[in-house]
Amino acid sequence: MAMVCLSDFEAYAKKYLPKIAWDYFAAGADDCTTRDENILAYKRIRFRPRMLRDVSVMDIRTKILGSEISFPVGIAPTGFHQLAWPDGEKSTARAARAMNTCYIASTYSTCSLEEISAAAPGGLRWFQLYIHRNRAASQQLVWRAEASGFQGLVLTVDLPYTGKRRDDVRNGFRLPPHMKVKNLEGAFEVCKMSPLDPSVTWNDIYWLRSLTRLPIIIKGILTREDAELAVRHGVQGIIVSNHGGRQLDEGPATIDALVEVVEAVRGRVEVYVDGGIRKGSDVLKALALGAKCVFIGRPALWGLAYKGEEGLQDVLRILQDEFRLSMALAGCASVSEIGQHLVQFSKL
Amino acid sequence: MAMVCLSDFEAYAKKYLPKIAWDYFAAGADDCTTRDENILAYKRIRFRPRMLRDVSVMDIRTKILGSEISFPVGIAPTGFHQLAWPDGEKSTARAARAMNTCYIASTYSTCSLEEISAAAPGGLRWFQLYIHRNRAASQQLVWRAEASGFQGLVLTVDLPYTGKRRDDVRNGFRLPPHMKVKNLEGAFEVCKMSPLDPSVTWNDIYWLRSLTRLPIIIKGILTREDAELAVRHGVQGIIVSNHGGRQLDEGPATIDALVEVVEAVRGRVEVYVDGGIRKGSDVLKALALGAKCVFIGRPALWGLAYKGEEGLQDVLRILQDEFRLSMALAGCASVSEIGQHLVQFSKL
Amino acid sequence: MAMVCLSDFEAYAKKYLPKIAWDYFAAGADDCTTRDENILAYKRIRFRPRMLRDVSVMDIRTKILGSEISFPVGIAPTGFHQLAWPDGEKSTARAARAMNTCYIASTYSTCSLEEISAAAPGGLRWFQLYIHRNRAASQQLVWRAEASGFQGLVLTVDLPYTGKRRDDVRNGFRLPPHMKVKNLEGAFEVCKMSPLDPSVTWNDIYWLRSLTRLPIIIKGILTREDAELAVRHGVQGIIVSNHGGRQLDEGPATIDALVEVVEAVRGRVEVYVDGGIRKGSDVLKALALGAKCVFIGRPALWGLAYKGEEGLQDVLRILQDEFRLSMALAGCASVSEIGQHLVQFSKL
Amino acid sequence: MAMVCLSDFEAYAKKYLPKIAWDYFAAGADDCTTRDENILAYKRIRFRPRMLRDVSVMDIRTKILGSEISFPVGIAPTGFHQLAWPDGEKSTARAARAMNTCYIASTYSTCSLEEISAAAPGGLRWFQLYIHRNRAASQQLVWRAEASGFQGLVLTVDLPYTGKRRDDVRNGFRLPPHMKVKNLEGAFEVCKMSPLDPSVTWNDIYWLRSLTRLPIIIKGILTREDAELAVRHGVQGIIVSNHGGRQLDEGPATIDALVEVVEAVRGRVEVYVDGGIRKGSDVLKALALGAKCVFIGRPALWGLAYKGEEGLQDVLRILQDEFRLSMALAGCASVSEIGQHLVQFSKL
Repeated sequence: MAMVCLSDFEAYAKKYLPKIAWDYFAAGADDCTTRDENILAYKRIRFRPRMLRDVSVMDIRTKILGSEISFPVGIAPTGFHQLAWPDGEKSTARAARAMNTCYIASTYSTCSLEEISAAAPGGLRWFQLYIHRNRAASQQLVWRAEASGFQGLVLTVDLPYTGKRRDDVRNGFRLPPHMKVKNLEGAFEVCKMSPLDPSVTWNDIYWLRSLTRLPIIIKGILTREDAELAVRHGVQGIIVSNHGGRQLDEGPATIDALVEVVEAVRGRVEVYVDGGIRKGSDVLKALALGAKCVFIGRPALWGLAYKGEEGLQDVLRILQDEFRLSMALAGCASVSEIGQHLVQFSKL
Repeated sequence: MAMVCLSDFEAYAKKYLPKIAWDYFAAGADDCTTRDENILAYKRIRFRPRMLRDVSVMDIRTKILGSEISFPVGIAPTGFHQLAWPDGEKSTARAARAMNTCYIASTYSTCSLEEISAAAPGGLRWFQLYIHRNRAASQQLVWRAEASGFQGLVLTVDLPYTGKRRDDVRNGFRLPPHMKVKNLEGAFEVCKMSPLDPSVTWNDIYWLRSLTRLPIIIKGILTREDAELAVRHGVQGIIVSNHGGRQLDEGPATIDALVEVVEAVRGRVEVYVDGGIRKGSDVLKALALGAKCVFIGRPALWGLAYKGEEGLQDVLRILQDEFRLSMALAGCASVSEIGQHLVQFSKL
Repeated sequence: MAMVCLSDFEAYAKKYLPKIAWDYFAAGADDCTTRDENILAYKRIRFRPRMLRDVSVMDIRTKILGSEISFPVGIAPTGFHQLAWPDGEKSTARAARAMNTCYIASTYSTCSLEEISAAAPGGLRWFQLYIHRNRAASQQLVWRAEASGFQGLVLTVDLPYTGKRRDDVRNGFRLPPHMKVKNLEGAFEVCKMSPLDPSVTWNDIYWLRSLTRLPIIIKGILTREDAELAVRHGVQGIIVSNHGGRQLDEGPATIDALVEVVEAVRGRVEVYVDGGIRKGSDVLKALALGAKCVFIGRPALWGLAYKGEEGLQDVLRILQDEFRLSMALAGCASVSEIGQHLVQFSKL
Repeated sequence: MAMVCLSDFEAYAKKYLPKIAWDYFAAGADDCTTRDENILAYKRIRFRPRMLRDVSVMDIRTKILGSEISFPVGIAPTGFHQLAWPDGEKSTARAARAMNTCYIASTYSTCSLEEISAAAPGGLRWFQLYIHRNRAASQQLVWRAEASGFQGLVLTVDLPYTGKRRDDVRNGFRLPPHMKVKNLEGAFEVCKMSPLDPSVTWNDIYWLRSLTRLPIIIKGILTREDAELAVRHGVQGIIVSNHGGRQLDEGPATIDALVEVVEAVRGRVEVYVDGGIRKGSDVLKALALGAKCVFIGRPALWGLAYKGEEGLQDVLRILQDEFRLSMALAGCASVSEIGQHLVQFSKL
């Protein structure tokens, strides 16, 4: 079967992954409304393409926090990559480096952050973390990430408790015994996730800032009010995210929330978005609405499930080609020409 | 089969209840548009969740008419619980007490109100009544309810005549001979419902008030005009309800009507809502839009059908857990923090 | 099978009528969008029901052009009733009289207007006509209708040419040889319909007026502009109609067009509507939006197909019961209490 | 099977064409959203039909750039007609001439433009072209077209690169070896389409103008901004087109884009539209919204696939009959009476 678009990888992963792993990756909270809305919301945005602009030389590179990437698509933090491919996050890191883009490694990786770093030296990587009840544990992770060459810290703020994902409850999901959350080994049991601290507030941003000189990117913001607070608390970037629809069901689609966050931020920090990206033209829409870069979650896992590092590169390459083509067909030769004039919200 | 969410109980009840009983509980008037809209309307409401608020200590208790309940979900009045479980309303009363919430017993119970009281002494209960052509019969019921420790009277006003529920007509629905409408025994035949008085007007509220010192809650209000009249006629509470879509088809979904009723009432009396609640996040939406508490009808019956008192407790516990989790994920640690800022109406 | 609602009659007719007859009655023009929209548009209207109004004595009678009918539902003109029942329009006339309502007999009846009159003396009947190229033929029909006791003339204006009904073309629909368009016998071939004059204009209303003292009702108006012209040309009534979606596809649903016609007419003449009425509550909606009465087309044919005169009475009786119940549940005890406050247009 | 409407031809073509050819003709870019929207958007437009206007003599002729055509429907440029019928574009040319309408021959024809001309001398034809990297090749085509009697040049501007049509990629679509892109024979390989120049800008319109006295029609405009630029650069006509949804997916439906283009152009040049025309009433809608004429793409191919020249005439004749009937039923006796008052956008 030819792999022509991202749905082909999804179909492959659904067919070949063990059901419990597929269900875990696919899961959304409750009725999965928000998970599905993330995708549907892109369909309600229409392009206003411009013609007869010289698009013979296309430049799709961009920079995030000063680092150049080959195109504005990075890898969002997702857990347990060994469920998709034996080499797990090491393959992810290699694919991201090969494609010259950014990989946000999850705390809940099945490889340690040191292993991830060693697997693809020189790649652009950020480290995703939660704040634990045991602040020392978080502190250790920050220091290890900094020492291992990660260039940004992504603080996830939408998981004071884990969302209710019905299939995981039905399946009694837990990691197979031969896989470990390597970053936290010995520290605590994974499945309960009790170590995460639900009392975290905005003040903890200051504490985190005090630990590191790495830029802090806050992930999980969905409202203008929280975007304003994030800027005021000194973060360097915001990822508009609803955790792939896995936390609070029936919140906004991320592409819809992006609009209000971008408006509130007024360019003071970089804004990114994840959730629902399935085509290169989705990337173009997100950029037109003010995102500096997007991150893909499940599609990266489908790529891994298909052929590990190589499969993920296939996914990224398809997105890259589609993004470049969409840009050209919309009349933009470089990322700097993308703007809000390219899109309008459909009334339907 | 694991019971993970309320739909699991629905599927169980549909599978194991006799068809005629399932049809009776499930029935909506005419095309069942309003019955289904009650659910769909919740899906059109989107959360605006806030992050990084201390949600380590969650307080989901509330008070209705001065009585504390463990969380803002009570049992709406529905008839004929013995169709779902042999012990009928006695089990319902026990489950409500065990979960420390309010149970509104229906006039059309298959246990008498005295039996209900005796089954769960000390539980918070309101009694639902209609006004009969024979006013003495209504008067008797009010006095018996007061004497049996019921703490509120819920007057249903949307049933001057019974709605046209096609399946009940086709099935020739009537109570099996071994079940009785115990509260009315001897007084009249049940199936015709002719005893209800279609000439009742707002003035009858004064008459009802003259009979009892119990608070009067009016159930079945759907417009601002009637909400204003209810307040002026001195009721203590309003339940926004369309009788589960069993009366006038193609009226508003209750969650939509709630908005205009809350606006009209301006805090002068408590406002509740029933119809369409299927998840803890629906409760959160109703509270965000101004309801003090919600009541569940069919889901309670599904719980009874599953395992009687225990099954209903399961249903309530799931709703409670989901409500608590939704609150936390939306950034609210106590019911008092819930407000309209948490929601917006989707345009789709 | 119990006949509980109008869809039951539809299902029966679809099952038992010859396909060619069913197709002819069911046909809409082109994609049948307007035919189906007539029904869907009712679903987008929501009631705002009022409670606690004395509805113990219900009065559902109304008057059209001064004649009292038992409830505001008449029989719209449709052709070829013998396709549905051997006695054809004679049965229709008898059923309408039995239910004390108005029957608009079609020019394209399979009984002559004299036969129709003789079948149910004393019934309230209007006669529907087109203007023919041969004006004398039209004149004859008018005089015969007047002589036979018809009390109104309904001029259909939306058929300068016959709409394209694909199934009729595929079926090669034509009347079976043993049926005749009795009103026009000898005058011309039916299937081509060429006798109708596509050059008719508003001035022909004056000509028609000059022929008769009967009130003239114009059928097929869909815009405020034409409603204004109709009033200015002295008609006594307007039937908002799109010919059951059989003429121009993708025009407005009649209940939507009713709103603008009623607004334009400002009470100067009576306004009626046909198309899409399937439940008593649809009648209530039409009256709330300003119709004085509605007319049913296909449902009458289904009733005929079921049991002739008796079947049509069943259909009318069901609509009557449903209309009365809807009124009561919406808080209206008489037709005069119905008003626009009872409805709102859903945004969905 | 009777051919009653255009869908009948579509069904025939889908059944009898080789899959690879059907897929090529049917293909849309990416998710085919825009391809399908082109059709759906027509369904959201409602007529406001007027009654009692003399429609006994219908005149459906119109003029485009001064040439009279029998009705406002021409043949849009599509490639590879031999995939549908052995005689290819020669049949198309003959059918267009027989129906007295305009045929826009594609550069990517499987007959040369000289063959096309010779097949139907005297027919009204325009020639569609792209601007090639090798400007001399384009120049040659222009001169050959002018020499062969083509009366207009249609410059397609929405294909700097070919859109991603998944089925074509999966099928590895390429012309069968016995077919040739005759207009370009020897010049380059067809399947790569690399000869097209993605550096083309508005200035190239001046270059094209300098080559020929033929009117220039620009095809592929979707925004008011580009419409304004087109007028300023001196084109004689604009075809609002999204290339049948084969280029940038999720741009606007053409009938929606038509509105803004017509507004911007303010009558300074003629505006046409293609995409989604499936019924005569679609033609009427496009004209009501300001198009001077519409062009059909896929339906013409279905006609060819059915019976070559004769099949395409059938398609055109059906559209013509439907258009005439729609006009009459909407109250217009000639094209000049068609205006915006005839339509409104449905909110649904």
